[in-house]
Amino acid sequence: MADQQTSSDRSFVGRARDGLDVFASSYPARFAILVFAGLNVVFMLLLMTPWASADGRATPIVDAFFQAVSVVCVTGLTVVDMATHWSPLGNAVVMVGVEVGGIGVLTLASLLGMTVARRLGLRQRLLAASDSNPSRVRKGVVKEGQAIRLGEVGGLLRTVAISVLSFEAALVVLLYPRILLEGKDPLTALYEAVYWSIMAFTNSGFVPTVEGLEPYATDPWFMIVLMLGVFIGSLGFPVYFVLLRHLSRPRQWSLHVKLTISVSVMLFLAGGLAYLVLEWGNGDSWGTRDFGQQLLHAFFLSSMARSGGFAVDDLGLLHNSSLLVTDMLMFVGGGSASTAGGIKVTTLAILFLAAVAEARGRRSMEAFGRRIPSDVLRLAVSVTLWSATIVALVTVVLLEITGAPMSFVLFDVISAFATVGLSTGFTHSGLEDPAKVILALTMFAGRIGSVTLAAALAASQRTQLFTRPEERPIVG
Amino acid sequence: MADQQTSSDRSFVGRARDGLDVFASSYPARFAILVFAGLNVVFMLLLMTPWASADGRATPIVDAFFQAVSVVCVTGLTVVDMATHWSPLGNAVVMVGVEVGGIGVLTLASLLGMTVARRLGLRQRLLAASDSNPSRVRKGVVKEGQAIRLGEVGGLLRTVAISVLSFEAALVVLLYPRILLEGKDPLTALYEAVYWSIMAFTNSGFVPTVEGLEPYATDPWFMIVLMLGVFIGSLGFPVYFVLLRHLSRPRQWSLHVKLTISVSVMLFLAGGLAYLVLEWGNGDSWGTRDFGQQLLHAFFLSSMARSGGFAVDDLGLLHNSSLLVTDMLMFVGGGSASTAGGIKVTTLAILFLAAVAEARGRRSMEAFGRRIPSDVLRLAVSVTLWSATIVALVTVVLLEITGAPMSFVLFDVISAFATVGLSTGFTHSGLEDPAKVILALTMFAGRIGSVTLAAALAASQRTQLFTRPEERPIVG
Ligand SMILES: [K+]
Ligand SMILES: [K+]
Repeated sequence: MADQQTSSDRSFVGRARDGLDVFASSYPARFAILVFAGLNVVFMLLLMTPWASADGRATPIVDAFFQAVSVVCVTGLTVVDMATHWSPLGNAVVMVGVEVGGIGVLTLASLLGMTVARRLGLRQRLLAASDSNPSRVRKGVVKEGQAIRLGEVGGLLRTVAISVLSFEAALVVLLYPRILLEGKDPLTALYEAVYWSIMAFTNSGFVPTVEGLEPYATDPWFMIVLMLGVFIGSLGFPVYFVLLRHLSRPRQWSLHVKLTISVSVMLFLAGGLAYLVLEWGNGDSWGTRDFGQQLLHAFFLSSMARSGGFAVDDLGLLHNSSLLVTDMLMFVGGGSASTAGGIKVTTLAILFLAAVAEARGRRSMEAFGRRIPSDVLRLAVSVTLWSATIVALVTVVLLEITGAPMSFVLFDVISAFATVGLSTGFTHSGLEDPAKVILALTMFAGRIGSVTLAAALAASQRTQLFTRPEERPIVG
Repeated sequence: MADQQTSSDRSFVGRARDGLDVFASSYPARFAILVFAGLNVVFMLLLMTPWASADGRATPIVDAFFQAVSVVCVTGLTVVDMATHWSPLGNAVVMVGVEVGGIGVLTLASLLGMTVARRLGLRQRLLAASDSNPSRVRKGVVKEGQAIRLGEVGGLLRTVAISVLSFEAALVVLLYPRILLEGKDPLTALYEAVYWSIMAFTNSGFVPTVEGLEPYATDPWFMIVLMLGVFIGSLGFPVYFVLLRHLSRPRQWSLHVKLTISVSVMLFLAGGLAYLVLEWGNGDSWGTRDFGQQLLHAFFLSSMARSGGFAVDDLGLLHNSSLLVTDMLMFVGGGSASTAGGIKVTTLAILFLAAVAEARGRRSMEAFGRRIPSDVLRLAVSVTLWSATIVALVTVVLLEITGAPMSFVLFDVISAFATVGLSTGFTHSGLEDPAKVILALTMFAGRIGSVTLAAALAASQRTQLFTRPEERPIVG
């Protein structure tokens, strides 16, 4: 507010900032978790107030907590009706929470990981998000060709925010006329267009109206625009930065960009084809409609499963086989340092490339004419193991608490962990409070999980002064 | 038969044997798969004959195929009532099939992998099974301290067979008096004791009588002897060989032995505790009996889940949470080069050790004061990925074909793949024929899978004369 501060004020701010720097660089993972947990609490308190709800009554704390975590983690699971429960203020809080959660925290976490790995102060020069990968910086040396210097944290945040807002604005332009066609008044239509755009690009998956996607369920335009927004949003910042500079020169694309895009496209196609085959003839879903509609719905679900979270069909009515396919797509998720969750497409790629290298008897993993250092595999294994363990434990506990069918519980747990937001109906307002709290903590663990884990790992690099004797157990 | 052969005969046999050697060392994985598939076909033909069935009618080909694969792969899943369907000849075929499947093929496969990796002829000197690990021999050099020379293949087979038969004889001695106490005549009791012992030690899990384990359901003696047999059987030959030489000197135990035993014990305890908690109060299983019985049943299931396959309770009545815990235990399985299936306990250990090393920022995986070379991780990832992919694909297909609940289908698919043989009731005589065939192929893939895969991998080691530029994608 005040441009002029007293010197004692400034010195207090300066000291606080220095203290924060020290804490952040000493305990970076804990710092990131604290910042993120704090955000969740702030949004819970905001959503709990009577002013945030449409009927002027305070939202119960468990529901407010669940919804705040779902918003800040851009998950999209709901235990209240998002379209009717909130006041305009509540809706504004939701939209701001999604933007903050989707952009700010991720960037912060990436930066923290990077900062600490290099033992630099937060205010020092940093490399861009395409280099925020702790697994790369651990080796110390970054090749100049791959590094994109962006300057200060502020510069990175600004770039991230500007590109996100530009993408979202483009989505608004594409969606607004279509919503007007529904006969809504211009202001309501604009609000809905902005809401859809934010929820699509941040891969959140909340819907602004009671009827949700129903009015657009047969409309390729609206659905494909949403798919496009979700798909681009799920690629991740490192990919945008490279594409913005080298869009027309694929030879300049980094390995990360090529892997992310190719695996994303493969999963999109494989998922869509699987749904098409498995739901064929299922009258409860889209299986008996004309072929064009079947294509649209199958590929819409395929793109939404990897973190988007918009649903146009009642997923509880899908075949169990389709639910299991969705489980797998959700578990993989989107690109690294994106608003999508899951173990990430590059993690899956690394696991497969390791198996291919093993099968071919090659010394190194290879892709697109590049050799991938083998220590990346260890990080990929860590991320996958952490994810599988959390999902398995939470599923066991929720099965025991609720006694619901495994296909439903497993689905919603993976949806929560990978911050997808699709639901079979297991997650609803009548769910037991302990189950709601556990699901909320699962979303939190899933969102902070791999990034913070990676940061924590990068920070604890140690040199060993002795070497133990080598011995090789038998595996497989 | 004839000790004296004509020289032309001998030369034919010699030439055939040489040809086999050439084929076996040129295409070892294919050779192992062919040998194993041939065994399955032979036992299918034997079981199809009218003489093998109790009512003198030929068994339908799909059922005979399913049962032959289940026998040779020591799985234990059934689509006919094993106690009443077969004639004495049929029962003999089953017992021989289990012994051949459990011992011979595994040894052969290990030897093949080893043979080929070293480019030696089948008849040349070989190292013992504790060294039959293709991941070790790939590097060429084997430390003398870890290697146990056994001489010829015949020598290895003889040692394996003798130790297996000794263990089984010990089990017979422990079980026979208890079965006599049931008031059975001495010969029937002896047959049943031999049957139980073979099925326990080979981790097959077939039962000789209609009532199965029911008469012994509250008897700690019988159940604990079975658990002991299954547990020792699931450790694997490499472990026995070391233990037989160094039982009282744990310092001499190899890393493989320590890892196998410690992880097996941990899984046994963790599984038992999980069942105890999750089934607490479930009147449909053991949850309302006295505490001693609850302990017995919980830990019995825990030991059987990792490949034994004996069931004393109706698993379809367990909580879904317990079924998911069982899924995980079955997927992990037993020790390498054992009659147990799954990804193997050492594979799980490697994945966790990799995550621990990553979290601690250590350069190498470490356990029991030993450094584990990082290329072992790649093999562990390959085995796990192959297993998870097969299980997921087969589950999707069977869900689509049968429409059964996911908790049941996933359970029986993992049970088949990991050759466990426990069933929720999904696998039964009324199952659709395509589903039976798919389950049988899953058992086959699970049994030959990791061993043959490993052999195939070891064979295709190639030297690359150029090095590609290194690049590091972002994961997690
Ligand atoms: K989402
Ligand atoms: K078995």
